[in-house]
Amino acid sequence: LRKGFPEVVFCQGKTQDQIITILKKMSEQYPNLLATRVQPDHFLAVQKEIPDIQYHPTARLFILERKPAEKKGCVAVISAGTADLPIAEEAAVTAELAGSYINRIYDIGIAGIHRLFSHLDQLWQSNVIVAVAGMEGALPGVVSGMVGRPVIAVPTSVGYGAHFQGLSALLTMLNSCSPGIATVNIDNGFGAGYLAHLINQLAEGEK
Amino acid sequence: LRKGFPEVVFCQGKTQDQIITILKKMSEQYPNLLATRVQPDHFLAVQKEIPDIQYHPTARLFILERKPAEKKGCVAVISAGTADLPIAEEAAVTAELAGSYINRIYDIGIAGIHRLFSHLDQLWQSNVIVAVAGMEGALPGVVSGMVGRPVIAVPTSVGYGAHFQGLSALLTMLNSCSPGIATVNIDNGFGAGYLAHLINQLAEGEK
Amino acid sequence: LRKGFPEVVFCQGKTQDQIITILKKMSEQYPNLLATRVQPDHFLAVQKEIPDIQYHPTARLFILERKPAEKKGCVAVISAGTADLPIAEEAAVTAELAGSYINRIYDIGIAGIHRLFSHLDQLWQSNVIVAVAGMEGALPGVVSGMVGRPVIAVPTSVGYGAHFQGLSALLTMLNSCSPGIATVNIDNGFGAGYLAHLINQLAEGEK
Amino acid sequence: LRKGFPEVVFCQGKTQDQIITILKKMSEQYPNLLATRVQPDHFLAVQKEIPDIQYHPTARLFILERKPAEKKGCVAVISAGTADLPIAEEAAVTAELAGSYINRIYDIGIAGIHRLFSHLDQLWQSNVIVAVAGMEGALPGVVSGMVGRPVIAVPTSVGYGAHFQGLSALLTMLNSCSPGIATVNIDNGFGAGYLAHLINQLAEGEK
Amino acid sequence: LRKGFPEVVFCQGKTQDQIITILKKMSEQYPNLLATRVQPDHFLAVQKEIPDIQYHPTARLFILERKPAEKKGCVAVISAGTADLPIAEEAAVTAELAGSYINRIYDIGIAGIHRLFSHLDQLWQSNVIVAVAGMEGALPGVVSGMVGRPVIAVPTSVGYGAHFQGLSALLTMLNSCSPGIATVNIDNGFGAGYLAHLINQLAEGEK
Amino acid sequence: LRKGFPEVVFCQGKTQDQIITILKKMSEQYPNLLATRVQPDHFLAVQKEIPDIQYHPTARLFILERKPAEKKGCVAVISAGTADLPIAEEAAVTAELAGSYINRIYDIGIAGIHRLFSHLDQLWQSNVIVAVAGMEGALPGVVSGMVGRPVIAVPTSVGYGAHFQGLSALLTMLNSCSPGIATVNIDNGFGAGYLAHLINQLAEGEK
Amino acid sequence: LRKGFPEVVFCQGKTQDQIITILKKMSEQYPNLLATRVQPDHFLAVQKEIPDIQYHPTARLFILERKPAEKKGCVAVISAGTADLPIAEEAAVTAELAGSYINRIYDIGIAGIHRLFSHLDQLWQSNVIVAVAGMEGALPGVVSGMVGRPVIAVPTSVGYGAHFQGLSALLTMLNSCSPGIATVNIDNGFGAGYLAHLINQLAEGEK
Amino acid sequence: LRKGFPEVVFCQGKTQDQIITILKKMSEQYPNLLATRVQPDHFLAVQKEIPDIQYHPTARLFILERKPAEKKGCVAVISAGTADLPIAEEAAVTAELAGSYINRIYDIGIAGIHRLFSHLDQLWQSNVIVAVAGMEGALPGVVSGMVGRPVIAVPTSVGYGAHFQGLSALLTMLNSCSPGIATVNIDNGFGAGYLAHLINQLAEGEK
Ligand SMILES: Nc1ncnc2c1ncn2[C@@H]1O[C@H](COP(=O)(O)O)[C@@H](O)[C@H]1O
Ligand SMILES: Nc1ncnc2c1ncn2[C@@H]1O[C@H](COP(=O)(O)O)[C@@H](O)[C@H]1O
Ligand SMILES: Nc1ncnc2c1ncn2[C@@H]1O[C@H](COP(=O)(O)O)[C@@H](O)[C@H]1O
Ligand SMILES: Nc1ncnc2c1ncn2[C@@H]1O[C@H](COP(=O)(O)O)[C@@H](O)[C@H]1O
Ligand SMILES: [Mg+2]
Ligand SMILES: [Mg+2]
Ligand SMILES: [Mg+2]
Ligand SMILES: [Mg+2]
Ligand SMILES: [Mg+2]
Ligand SMILES: [Mg+2]
Ligand SMILES: [Mg+2]
Ligand SMILES: [Mg+2]
Repeated sequence: LRKGFPEVVFCQGKTQDQIITILKKMSEQYPNLLATRVQPDHFLAVQKEIPDIQYHPTARLFILERKPAEKKGCVAVISAGTADLPIAEEAAVTAELAGSYINRIYDIGIAGIHRLFSHLDQLWQSNVIVAVAGMEGALPGVVSGMVGRPVIAVPTSVGYGAHFQGLSALLTMLNSCSPGIATVNIDNGFGAGYLAHLINQLAEGEK
Repeated sequence: LRKGFPEVVFCQGKTQDQIITILKKMSEQYPNLLATRVQPDHFLAVQKEIPDIQYHPTARLFILERKPAEKKGCVAVISAGTADLPIAEEAAVTAELAGSYINRIYDIGIAGIHRLFSHLDQLWQSNVIVAVAGMEGALPGVVSGMVGRPVIAVPTSVGYGAHFQGLSALLTMLNSCSPGIATVNIDNGFGAGYLAHLINQLAEGEK
Repeated sequence: LRKGFPEVVFCQGKTQDQIITILKKMSEQYPNLLATRVQPDHFLAVQKEIPDIQYHPTARLFILERKPAEKKGCVAVISAGTADLPIAEEAAVTAELAGSYINRIYDIGIAGIHRLFSHLDQLWQSNVIVAVAGMEGALPGVVSGMVGRPVIAVPTSVGYGAHFQGLSALLTMLNSCSPGIATVNIDNGFGAGYLAHLINQLAEGEK
Repeated sequence: LRKGFPEVVFCQGKTQDQIITILKKMSEQYPNLLATRVQPDHFLAVQKEIPDIQYHPTARLFILERKPAEKKGCVAVISAGTADLPIAEEAAVTAELAGSYINRIYDIGIAGIHRLFSHLDQLWQSNVIVAVAGMEGALPGVVSGMVGRPVIAVPTSVGYGAHFQGLSALLTMLNSCSPGIATVNIDNGFGAGYLAHLINQLAEGEK
Repeated sequence: LRKGFPEVVFCQGKTQDQIITILKKMSEQYPNLLATRVQPDHFLAVQKEIPDIQYHPTARLFILERKPAEKKGCVAVISAGTADLPIAEEAAVTAELAGSYINRIYDIGIAGIHRLFSHLDQLWQSNVIVAVAGMEGALPGVVSGMVGRPVIAVPTSVGYGAHFQGLSALLTMLNSCSPGIATVNIDNGFGAGYLAHLINQLAEGEK
Repeated sequence: LRKGFPEVVFCQGKTQDQIITILKKMSEQYPNLLATRVQPDHFLAVQKEIPDIQYHPTARLFILERKPAEKKGCVAVISAGTADLPIAEEAAVTAELAGSYINRIYDIGIAGIHRLFSHLDQLWQSNVIVAVAGMEGALPGVVSGMVGRPVIAVPTSVGYGAHFQGLSALLTMLNSCSPGIATVNIDNGFGAGYLAHLINQLAEGEK
Repeated sequence: LRKGFPEVVFCQGKTQDQIITILKKMSEQYPNLLATRVQPDHFLAVQKEIPDIQYHPTARLFILERKPAEKKGCVAVISAGTADLPIAEEAAVTAELAGSYINRIYDIGIAGIHRLFSHLDQLWQSNVIVAVAGMEGALPGVVSGMVGRPVIAVPTSVGYGAHFQGLSALLTMLNSCSPGIATVNIDNGFGAGYLAHLINQLAEGEK
Repeated sequence: LRKGFPEVVFCQGKTQDQIITILKKMSEQYPNLLATRVQPDHFLAVQKEIPDIQYHPTARLFILERKPAEKKGCVAVISAGTADLPIAEEAAVTAELAGSYINRIYDIGIAGIHRLFSHLDQLWQSNVIVAVAGMEGALPGVVSGMVGRPVIAVPTSVGYGAHFQGLSALLTMLNSCSPGIATVNIDNGFGAGYLAHLINQLAEGEK
């Protein structure tokens, strides 16, 4: 179904034993694996079983990449603030592993909106944009109002008070007045990266 | 308490009889009156009792202004879309009646953000900005990131679906990353206009 | 910005006079127009001013199409139930007007899931899928688990009780375990159709 | 009232002392006991007082089974993902202890829906199905659309972001378009297992 | 799939034309039909096409019953208040049409709890209980604490204020401390009646 | 204002230093003090400064009672389950310290409703009833339907899943169909005990 | 149970026929009746059957009072704004009919807090206070901080925007920092009046 | 943009390394810095890099103040309870650092409303009031009803149960009936202090 895409394991809520068993078995069948929402202290035990697995701490991923995919096209991954990095990286690494070139543009949120303006050209040069933001979550809508590319909006749980763990950013993105946006779950960098890659692939003439 | 401010009656939830009785009595005591959230079909009956009362249909106000206040300073009232006009006008007329000059700049929402950029100078020339927006409600935050004036954000109930009658716009404004903003209740143009006038008055050296 | 896309007016919350003024003026500048969320009883008055404007009752659209766009590629628009038709048609007509071929496959919801299975081939032949569903909103996730194309999920307000005007379907779609999905606002057929067209265009080699 | 059913103690929110006192006293009166939502570190102390009590770590249960009930009929317990196991096992062990044969079919969620299809026959052979799912929670509805048996849906708190600790899965299940489903509280494996046993008993001609 | 169960059409959100087309076609294929959530003013037009269709005003149902099912077993349908009747009747008529004997016991809510006590014997004599309640929604839990039969709880939207259109009754039922209960959507009498019939059938030895 | 009532300090969210300073100063002015929501590990430090202060671990209270109030009348404090004890005791000790006789009747929730019935006489003999319950929260409503005394309902956060930290129990109590009830905040045993004492005092002819 | 209290019928959600049938039958058994939440256009039909029944339009009540209760003690009913009158009157008339003297003090909300201060003496002279408020709902808490009488707080649905149909006022009252308050459902004037009378009765030495 | 205002870093959700890097770099460019939401255990490491940085434990701030701003005008910062101090101090220190004189008046909440009355004169002497409150959050509305100065309301998360982490206080403030108030996010002392300083500056004739 997922042409060329690595197998994926969602590790949150699984015990270390379950994770090792699943990854071990998969690593015997598939060259490339992605384990998301991993805990740092599981890495040594996993690595003991699968020595060539890698750990990406910011993105909270374990990655096995025995047959790297050929990279194509361009996915822009942009984020509003420093605290959104884990989710932005989760998206970027996911799409990269699947075979997309990534253009990372971070820390261009609304509080310093002029930083965004200087990157509009680069955004037009990507096939699709993943826009990650917490707090008020306005970045994806502003970008979509200025750049004619599909925007995948990722609300993050970064914020406090009436942010309600990401609900506020989520609602902002769903209610955007500029069309050309769709939204994934709060903190779902993986889903955004996956979908961005699907679109990038299509734009590069592959189905 | 409210130096020079007209008496105010909130008409929603009051019967026509109650409204007439209250306004009649007040119009004998005070030269200036403001009735908010009025229904058009109450106007004729009210006018019969107070012939010089006026009706402002967009802002849904009845206004009695026998001793117009001297106008001072400048309050900018800006809005994102056409459907936000009733609330923007409620704010504008309230502050105007109280004695502020108003600069109305409408229809400069995020979907066409370039329209906003051409008005930044005017916004810097006001003492305070009332920013009215529904849908995603990002306008006040973007403005506050670009203009160093107090911004009073007014979320409106304009939107649908996950807008939840204005909740989404309200949360966006409360979670704004650019400081210098505070928010009033959904659709509370009156409250925003009143507060803007208070601040404008202070800026003009009056207390 | 929106290459070749018709100008769009969101009519909900606007008065008949405002709508006529806006559409009249735009129809003098642009060959193609789309007015969304229209009311049937506004049509005659609008048509009086713009005689060649058309009314699409199911999709609640007014359409002016003086220079039809050349159609390309394929967007599949699928829906779960009969009551979701207005939103599915809003998406379909939007993408069509913009220049996409549309494959409509309706009434294939979870309650009769076998109907879905017989259309999987057609779904693989489209570039992108708009999946519209109310009630439990499971259709987009099931489709995304079986077809390797980008899925734009549109929750509708069709349902009752703990559906909370579409909230339930929205949350289902945001929490989908099969990746390759992103979600637009409840009842936002327009946004989904617009985004689907953007992706379809990219897949057909146009930017 | 509960013919043949073991006495049950809900341990969450109780201190270790309270739990020991209650279980001790009950174990003198009743042959079979079930303690739910237990904490691992209470086990040794409890076992000291009731040496033949057992601990089921996945299901978070303490079990005393001095007079095992005769097993009858069949309850199918199915689950969507690995992280739902604790709740699925809570349901399975509860119904088993009460006297039902259990058919466990795990890890057949929507993301890999073909796995579900190969088990439809077994589901038809059970009297009642307990369907456990987190994330989008679509499994029970899909099963109920394909199998004519009562489905007891158990939403789990497995998920993140807009899952809101199980709310999303709960709403999905309540809004299912295929009838034949009813839902219990989020993570309430015990309640589902108990009710499934009641129905299984009826189906085996016992009241 | 649904052995002997009539075909069902959910009419809310469908136009009169859609309903007539669907029912007409189905009435040519199936002897028994159930149309739920109907509007009174659609009846004459429907009857013109299907003369032997019947209208049940309290339950808001259209019913075609050309081959009445043989009645078996017993489903108790109980309700808390007079205003819950439409939902209780929707459940009762659904199960009846499908082939269950119904014992209706209405108006036995918590405010006059002594009325409930005099019916406990009858409840023990049914195979399954549908318990319908709005307001605080405590009836199903109290019944389940006193009668060892499966209880299908139906929250209704009857109430006001912090009832939030049935949310309060729904939550009460989901959080019931007496096991043996599962809950359907707010106002979903149809779903409850359908499931009750499934269980009643099993208890009568039919699968 | 609070005739004879001890001074009260709410300790949650205060540092140990703040608590000691406040209590120290008050203990020099007033003979009786009540400190609520205390942490066990603050006790020794507090006792060092005020040697005759007492700690009530279940109710999470520090108590100084140098001039015990004369006890009068009767407040019944009832609770549904063992886990509700901390809140029930908070209410009981508060009213006791203020001068009410207390009749504690615990563990009489809906799951074993027969236990409630055997205490109805005692409830009629009290002036006012504090009814504490978590989970479904039905106890206060059932009691109020059977006993003609004012009922102060206290929802607790005891529960899980769709209990939403006490929201479910709170809504149940607010929507009770039997009148004669009013509700305090979730887990607010103190407020309930205080109000119960006020009413008990009135009933004993004191104002 | 309800010593001397009239029988009560909750008319919302009942048809005119149901209401007439119930009231007719009751009027043959009981001298005093209270029907709440009535619709004006039902009155003539009801009066035809029970000629001496009365209609109280502000409080939306039908009242039959053939054996007026002897009035005792004093219940203060206070309200914040004019739009809260229907609920305040529902409370006042309920308690009056049951046998309490009522002291009505209306329009003393926070916006004009000095009006409240001039009535503190009268509030001290009542046995119990019913405090009705919409909008921010602060009145009951302020009163309770100044008067040592039980306060029954009634939130009303008067407000807009983030008032969420009374939710805001409800939460304010539940979170009040001054003890001596308990809250009833939004707009539940009847429940407040009933409970106030129970307390007033106790204070007058009657049980 | 922010004339004379120190640069600000929001530290919540940032790692210690990120914080040090950002502050280090900024401290080389700007004389004055404000770091909000800091963790105590980061201080030593930060101080090692920037020896003259200061730590304000109550307000959870790191402050670098090499060129203190000249103080002007007056901002009153008032708070309801002791537990609100961290937020009140965050506001006070922010405005102070920016160049405002601060008048702190703490612990004047509704439960002891007479304490508020004795400070009304001082409040009139400030240009703007920051009013901080948790629990019911009524303080800002009461103040605004008595003092004709702009009130910036700051809800805090201090409370429990139906406070929902500050939601209740937030809604109270948004729904205030006395105009002249606007609200910032729950616990956003920084935003309130910043806006208060902007207004104070304007009132002192500076723009
Ligand atoms: N549109 C409005 N929104 C919010 N508050 C208002 C509005 N109009 C008037 N008010 C406030 O409500 C108070 C009058 O309430 P009332 O006495 O019920 O007419 C006035 O003092 C105003 O402060
Ligand atoms: N049905 C719709 N849902 C969401 N956004 C829409 C819809 N129709 C139009 N829009 C957007 O709203 C903008 C027009 O808003 P307006 O200027 O108020 O007519 C358009 O540029 C579209 O991007
Ligand atoms: N009142 C109802 N509530 C929930 N589901 C229903 C209801 N009535 C019918 N249904 C379900 O909806 C399906 C029909 O939907 P439709 O094809 O839209 O008429 C039926 O198969 C039923 O399972
Ligand atoms: N405590 C706070 N609450 C809300 N916003 C803040 C806070 N502290 C700083 N900010 C804003 O967040 C911006 C800095 O964000 P960052 O670049 O992530 O450090 C600043 O420009 C401030 O406007
Ligand atoms: Mg765009
Ligand atoms: Mg600014
Ligand atoms: Mg897919
Ligand atoms: Mg089924
Ligand atoms: Mg039972
Ligand atoms: Mg009672
Ligand atoms: Mg008091
Ligand atoms: Mg004021």
